[in-house]
Amino acid sequence: MKCRVCGKPANINLRSYKTSLCEDDFIAFLEKRVSTTIKKYRLIDETDTPIVAVSGGKDSLSLWYMMNGLGYASDGIYVDLGIEGYSGRSLEKIRQMADILQRKVYIFHVRNALQEGIDSVAKVIRRPTCSACGTIKRYIMNRICIDKGYTVLVTGHNLDDEASALFGNVLYWKKEYLWKKNVVLEGKEDHLVKKIKPFFLCSEREIAAYAIMKGIDYIYEECPFSKDAKTLVYKGILNRIEESSPGTKIMFVKGYLNVVKEKGDEKEGDREGRYCLQCGYPTFSDKCSFCRLLDKFGTGCSVEFDQYG
Amino acid sequence: MKCRVCGKPANINLRSYKTSLCEDDFIAFLEKRVSTTIKKYRLIDETDTPIVAVSGGKDSLSLWYMMNGLGYASDGIYVDLGIEGYSGRSLEKIRQMADILQRKVYIFHVRNALQEGIDSVAKVIRRPTCSACGTIKRYIMNRICIDKGYTVLVTGHNLDDEASALFGNVLYWKKEYLWKKNVVLEGKEDHLVKKIKPFFLCSEREIAAYAIMKGIDYIYEECPFSKDAKTLVYKGILNRIEESSPGTKIMFVKGYLNVVKEKGDEKEGDREGRYCLQCGYPTFSDKCSFCRLLDKFGTGCSVEFDQYG
Repeated sequence: MKCRVCGKPANINLRSYKTSLCEDDFIAFLEKRVSTTIKKYRLIDETDTPIVAVSGGKDSLSLWYMMNGLGYASDGIYVDLGIEGYSGRSLEKIRQMADILQRKVYIFHVRNALQEGIDSVAKVIRRPTCSACGTIKRYIMNRICIDKGYTVLVTGHNLDDEASALFGNVLYWKKEYLWKKNVVLEGKEDHLVKKIKPFFLCSEREIAAYAIMKGIDYIYEECPFSKDAKTLVYKGILNRIEESSPGTKIMFVKGYLNVVKEKGDEKEGDREGRYCLQCGYPTFSDKCSFCRLLDKFGTGCSVEFDQYG
Repeated sequence: MKCRVCGKPANINLRSYKTSLCEDDFIAFLEKRVSTTIKKYRLIDETDTPIVAVSGGKDSLSLWYMMNGLGYASDGIYVDLGIEGYSGRSLEKIRQMADILQRKVYIFHVRNALQEGIDSVAKVIRRPTCSACGTIKRYIMNRICIDKGYTVLVTGHNLDDEASALFGNVLYWKKEYLWKKNVVLEGKEDHLVKKIKPFFLCSEREIAAYAIMKGIDYIYEECPFSKDAKTLVYKGILNRIEESSPGTKIMFVKGYLNVVKEKGDEKEGDREGRYCLQCGYPTFSDKCSFCRLLDKFGTGCSVEFDQYG
């Protein structure tokens, strides 16, 4: 197996591209791919100030690292969910990367705000842990962006994440989600930050290889609450199809985006300009789900966060 | 395991309906399901004269049997592909059923018309066997319906067939097929017969159970050329998902039909009223693909078929 570019021994075989590459050429290839994705899909404008949502895992840390390397100077945001033996170690990896990149990272501690970790919070509000986590992360990340003047929230969703979520939405034709996914979710000035996913065409395997080649120190374990059986089943299914028909995952996601485009770019949030009476941020009802959550903990509406770097 | 209806020992467990049934109640259940499908989706009008496309397998023979039992008196059509050791035995099963039902069956012999079996025909026209078979079957069945005055061609496609075909279309977002599938494919008077699939909500397993319970003698082997690896892979995948989430296949197919409905009932054949200059039947170009096939065999345009019963 030789590198298609330089002829040296290859380190990775990319079946969906029918090519093999050595370490240096693979790094160049993946960075080029992300850079092209950002330009082709117009993810970032010249006037934008991006910030990366980091978790400490391979995807978000690789993305943060790569963004800064590609000239998109970006700070980070971390929501510390207060999961024992997990959140602390994730934060360590993030601080380490902040030092390397010499960038700031904003940190919101769920335990400081609510006196509980995410699992107890979820129990109090009687919601699945992942659902409570989503509510908090979406709110806090958006709020930090707006408060601090960042115009684009960059997330590390990769091809496998996108394809498996899409798979679930298509299998049950979930109208509330199906045509809403996109590479760019537009924002609303002063209220909702634009969200982008520059890794949406890069597979989990490619990103893991990049992280290893670049010596990026990330937390290997998945979040202990993230064992969503269905998503894992769908990822497994798609990997098996990919194995026999390389390129399927990319075709599945790209084909979907074409259909969405033809349907006329449905945007996120049919929120009809409604804003939370308590905090002023976008909502579907009088009070946003985050403020309702805060109410249950009697902690008022103040959102405080740390800053590192 | 007891029958939910009568309390006697159950013969079959239907996980997607969360129920178990004895033989008699299962037969009543499946017949009711098909009868409701026909009415709810308006598959057959009072003035219609239906005819069933039979292959000798469990789906088409069960359907033919059930249709006549439900009061939809139907003859049959069989295209004998001239596959040694297979087509002859299929025809035997069909004749047997024609005798039981006391109905006619029209038989087109590929070997009589083209002096070759389907595999050689496919080689001559340089097409995959299943593709050549599709061209011939579509043409012949339509032509017999029009010539003989049948207004609905009834096919035995079951839930697994529909779900797996849909799966492949969605996975690659095949626009040429994706929104064209439906329970009824409308015809065009004097040229294109209406096509319906009354079994589209009945699983392969349910139909096989019905055939066994009713003592329907069908050919067990699949067509030796039908080993479409992809369809089998998709069926396997859907069965595994169904196993852990019963009801998924039905939701997948029904959800799709809802989307198609919302899109405004796209009909089969954007043939813009073009008709073959040679035979006068619908086509995409000057000459239809069946006439072009006949040309290669120098057999002219006459289509002759046998009649049994």
